[in-house]
Amino acid sequence: MTVVLGPNRYGKAETRVVRVTRDGEVHHLKDCNVGVSLSGAMEDVHRSGSNAAVLPTDSQKNTVYAFAKKYGIGQIEEFALLLARHFVESQPTIHHARVVVEEYSWERRGPHSFARSGTETRTCAVHHDRDGTSTVVSGLRDLVVLNSTGSEFHGFVQDEYTTLPPATDRVLATAVTARWRHVPAAGQAQPDFGKSYDEVRRCLLEAFAGTHSLSLQQTLFAMGARVLAEREEICEVRLELPNKHHFLVDLSPFGLDNDNEVYFAADRPYGLIEGTVLNDDAPDAGPAWD
Amino acid sequence: MTVVLGPNRYGKAETRVVRVTRDGEVHHLKDCNVGVSLSGAMEDVHRSGSNAAVLPTDSQKNTVYAFAKKYGIGQIEEFALLLARHFVESQPTIHHARVVVEEYSWERRGPHSFARSGTETRTCAVHHDRDGTSTVVSGLRDLVVLNSTGSEFHGFVQDEYTTLPPATDRVLATAVTARWRHVPAAGQAQPDFGKSYDEVRRCLLEAFAGTHSLSLQQTLFAMGARVLAEREEICEVRLELPNKHHFLVDLSPFGLDNDNEVYFAADRPYGLIEGTVLNDDAPDAGPAWD
Amino acid sequence: MTVVLGPNRYGKAETRVVRVTRDGEVHHLKDCNVGVSLSGAMEDVHRSGSNAAVLPTDSQKNTVYAFAKKYGIGQIEEFALLLARHFVESQPTIHHARVVVEEYSWERRGPHSFARSGTETRTCAVHHDRDGTSTVVSGLRDLVVLNSTGSEFHGFVQDEYTTLPPATDRVLATAVTARWRHVPAAGQAQPDFGKSYDEVRRCLLEAFAGTHSLSLQQTLFAMGARVLAEREEICEVRLELPNKHHFLVDLSPFGLDNDNEVYFAADRPYGLIEGTVLNDDAPDAGPAWD
Amino acid sequence: MTVVLGPNRYGKAETRVVRVTRDGEVHHLKDCNVGVSLSGAMEDVHRSGSNAAVLPTDSQKNTVYAFAKKYGIGQIEEFALLLARHFVESQPTIHHARVVVEEYSWERRGPHSFARSGTETRTCAVHHDRDGTSTVVSGLRDLVVLNSTGSEFHGFVQDEYTTLPPATDRVLATAVTARWRHVPAAGQAQPDFGKSYDEVRRCLLEAFAGTHSLSLQQTLFAMGARVLAEREEICEVRLELPNKHHFLVDLSPFGLDNDNEVYFAADRPYGLIEGTVLNDDAPDAGPAWD
Repeated sequence: MTVVLGPNRYGKAETRVVRVTRDGEVHHLKDCNVGVSLSGAMEDVHRSGSNAAVLPTDSQKNTVYAFAKKYGIGQIEEFALLLARHFVESQPTIHHARVVVEEYSWERRGPHSFARSGTETRTCAVHHDRDGTSTVVSGLRDLVVLNSTGSEFHGFVQDEYTTLPPATDRVLATAVTARWRHVPAAGQAQPDFGKSYDEVRRCLLEAFAGTHSLSLQQTLFAMGARVLAEREEICEVRLELPNKHHFLVDLSPFGLDNDNEVYFAADRPYGLIEGTVLNDDAPDAGPAWD
Repeated sequence: MTVVLGPNRYGKAETRVVRVTRDGEVHHLKDCNVGVSLSGAMEDVHRSGSNAAVLPTDSQKNTVYAFAKKYGIGQIEEFALLLARHFVESQPTIHHARVVVEEYSWERRGPHSFARSGTETRTCAVHHDRDGTSTVVSGLRDLVVLNSTGSEFHGFVQDEYTTLPPATDRVLATAVTARWRHVPAAGQAQPDFGKSYDEVRRCLLEAFAGTHSLSLQQTLFAMGARVLAEREEICEVRLELPNKHHFLVDLSPFGLDNDNEVYFAADRPYGLIEGTVLNDDAPDAGPAWD
Repeated sequence: MTVVLGPNRYGKAETRVVRVTRDGEVHHLKDCNVGVSLSGAMEDVHRSGSNAAVLPTDSQKNTVYAFAKKYGIGQIEEFALLLARHFVESQPTIHHARVVVEEYSWERRGPHSFARSGTETRTCAVHHDRDGTSTVVSGLRDLVVLNSTGSEFHGFVQDEYTTLPPATDRVLATAVTARWRHVPAAGQAQPDFGKSYDEVRRCLLEAFAGTHSLSLQQTLFAMGARVLAEREEICEVRLELPNKHHFLVDLSPFGLDNDNEVYFAADRPYGLIEGTVLNDDAPDAGPAWD
Repeated sequence: MTVVLGPNRYGKAETRVVRVTRDGEVHHLKDCNVGVSLSGAMEDVHRSGSNAAVLPTDSQKNTVYAFAKKYGIGQIEEFALLLARHFVESQPTIHHARVVVEEYSWERRGPHSFARSGTETRTCAVHHDRDGTSTVVSGLRDLVVLNSTGSEFHGFVQDEYTTLPPATDRVLATAVTARWRHVPAAGQAQPDFGKSYDEVRRCLLEAFAGTHSLSLQQTLFAMGARVLAEREEICEVRLELPNKHHFLVDLSPFGLDNDNEVYFAADRPYGLIEGTVLNDDAPDAGPAWD
């Protein structure tokens, strides 16, 4: 028996970069959190501590800042691709790079004044390999939505531990985490990530609002399928939907009815529905979801 | 020497109530977090454990839900006043009630579909005493704003530990916590709390965006003064403004200049500016700020 | 009507300082989070933005680090007093300083190796005024304790919203936040803060464990009174005790009894009991609790 | 092109169960957070909303509580296995179950009084498949450790963005997240999970403290290899080690040296080192790490 090194990666997490661009009096703002994970010829550093193959995580952080200056921060997927390719192409010991970016949204309050807006965070994860292939996953998290009717849950399995009554009208609420995989672009061509994001977000919201739901799984599938139906640049959608339970309060001890009017918003435990919706001809995902 | 009981209060914190109101197909939503703190004839319960004077916190929670049904949840200040008066007026052992409410905002996405919106939380704290007096403090927290120019900081004290260079152009960013005290209403008349909230929020945002700032204190005072100048129903404003430092990244090692373009958004430590702006004829605050 | 500046203060929050002291091979570690709040002649900076009276918060941070080097970090109260006196005595525009310190505990795992230990954080808040007076409040937070029996709750007020059944055997659990005020020391003499902390913590734990509780208020009073009875250097104790509800799960639908064996640990809402226990001859608190 | 359902699972997350066991006057306490994820014949529920194959997450929660009563909570791995097997074996539509458990530690303060202890959380993740195979991963997170010397970092790659000076004596600190995979047990025999946990934890701590580190990767490998060398029931260890940077403060502007005495404990960004150490004859992992 021998001890071997298995999958490994290292990098700098959560580099917080804010990029201001001036257009005369009018400023533009990009506010991001960047994480880099590199892997490659790292056997020695684990075995002996030799850092001869190691690009310091501090240098990775510096690169994020320098690239923000040199190239600006356009769509986060593009910025992540720039960084990932740079690390792999410039360092022979780095065979693979994963770059994740979160973006926080701001709304304009003046020519150079801004207020944070929205509750959701836009995300992306990009992989680049030294064979030249890249994968791009875009996403969002913390998009909190609620339907106050149009949701049912009944006809489920009854086992000896089942006490839940069937529901024909309930609140359905969740905090959407969604990630979607782009069909690989031909050559250096890339989709319009900004427009794609806006459209996917719209699809998710519309499918959530528009689906009469018999189970959160059905809503999940409808959300993913809507994205695939409308956006040909997307081939796979993964969703994580916590069921943020809103329990009807029993007001009968106080002589009051409660016709779906007063709810207790519970924290824990919560249902958690996770699922994938994809095109049957989606190309191999490679490391895209890692 | 004798051991005595000093200031004390008890209650139910963080009752999460969601109230749905139907207007035909169209639903309306109020999403709140309610905290109740009661005080009064509580010597015995501390000394002997006798609960004869104690309204259980569980009953307080029930009251929140029952009142949400009976009265709906209009403006959070009104709901808090209803609750505070109820506890004091219905229980002889309760001499004073403090009710705090947080409200989370939702935007409509359909007749009965909603998405959480905004980053800030609306707040209020209400006190009601058995002598019949009430105080109302309204507020918000986590209103995150940033000016990418129009902020300076220089001419400060230089001591032996001062190394900060003067700045004539810096990013100014903060997460506003603001609370404002209402001039007591005559009789049962109350201000239009909803309109007042919108207007105060607007004043805060406009004063932040519109003030060329030589220090965050100056901005704080301008924000408070703007509210008092425009809103006669308000007599005092308290602000807590963390200085969310954005440090210019030194890119010179990479042969790059950085003309206020690339910033590192730091977490800790941070400056913290706290201040009060009030009318000189503001009535006594009583327990309003407790 | 004129707009005036009310209570205000400013400073640097959350300066994270770790101080290593070498004793040959053996190292010692102090790990703290320091917050400084200064007040004084700050009318101008609010009105005009003139910073002539303002010691930058950056200099305050530097002072924390320099003092950690020059004086080491002994007991956190002593370090806070050193800092508070320095700011007031060295700057004519600073009339009052408040310094708060949190300390995180580590246990030794080798001559220079450590592991974080315990769940609670030790705290202090010190005020120093230019008239030469100081106040010291020591404390802790997040000391989580649970009694699995020996707690009752009955005989409480029954109003129309009361549905809680009386309990003669329940779990009592809380996360203790405690702060205690020291009798002002004569001259520069100070109590042994380290020993005092250990003893107060012991008193709190013993009183919690040893009190057969008819209400959490009774436990609170017993905890405070125990400290005052045993520690003559303390004249006042303030406690905040969230009632971390553990609800007995109803297993009867599954043909199982539940004789205080299986509990659901709830998050929200929770009871919150706040109270003060003090000696009747305690000197005036001044700003100690601010 | 057709839209298909990809990998999916659903269940109840974060069921907080506290189990008290009485041994006369002396009580014992287990405090856990349980998550269940089930998968199987779930095509219909996603497509049509038919819940005929769906065991409600509410029933899963009930099962956790009922099993805590019926079987007690011994080692968390055993409790997770009991639950996972139950769901797969009792429900024909459930083909695979994943159960994760977190355990919080308490130290005894009396016969039935306890205080939360330690900063780390013990974890496990168990998979059970309808073919009868099970996998067990044990672990911990938030074990925070620091070496105040005995750590170097130099000899690394220098690229155009590298400014980090070499270090021959630095603080090395991390919050260990470790998970380790057990060699599958023959038949129903299981390792002594409690003893195994204690021993793995000891190995991790000793290897961290005892390794003179030239890079955090070297320390990571040493930690994993130590576990494999000492514990034959373990065949693979995965570690996530954030490099919690402690930066030496430059005190030279104040005429002070800083010979590794005063550090700033930074939050973000941070290095993140992730790696796997395994025996070359480790059996196939199956879904163990999912």
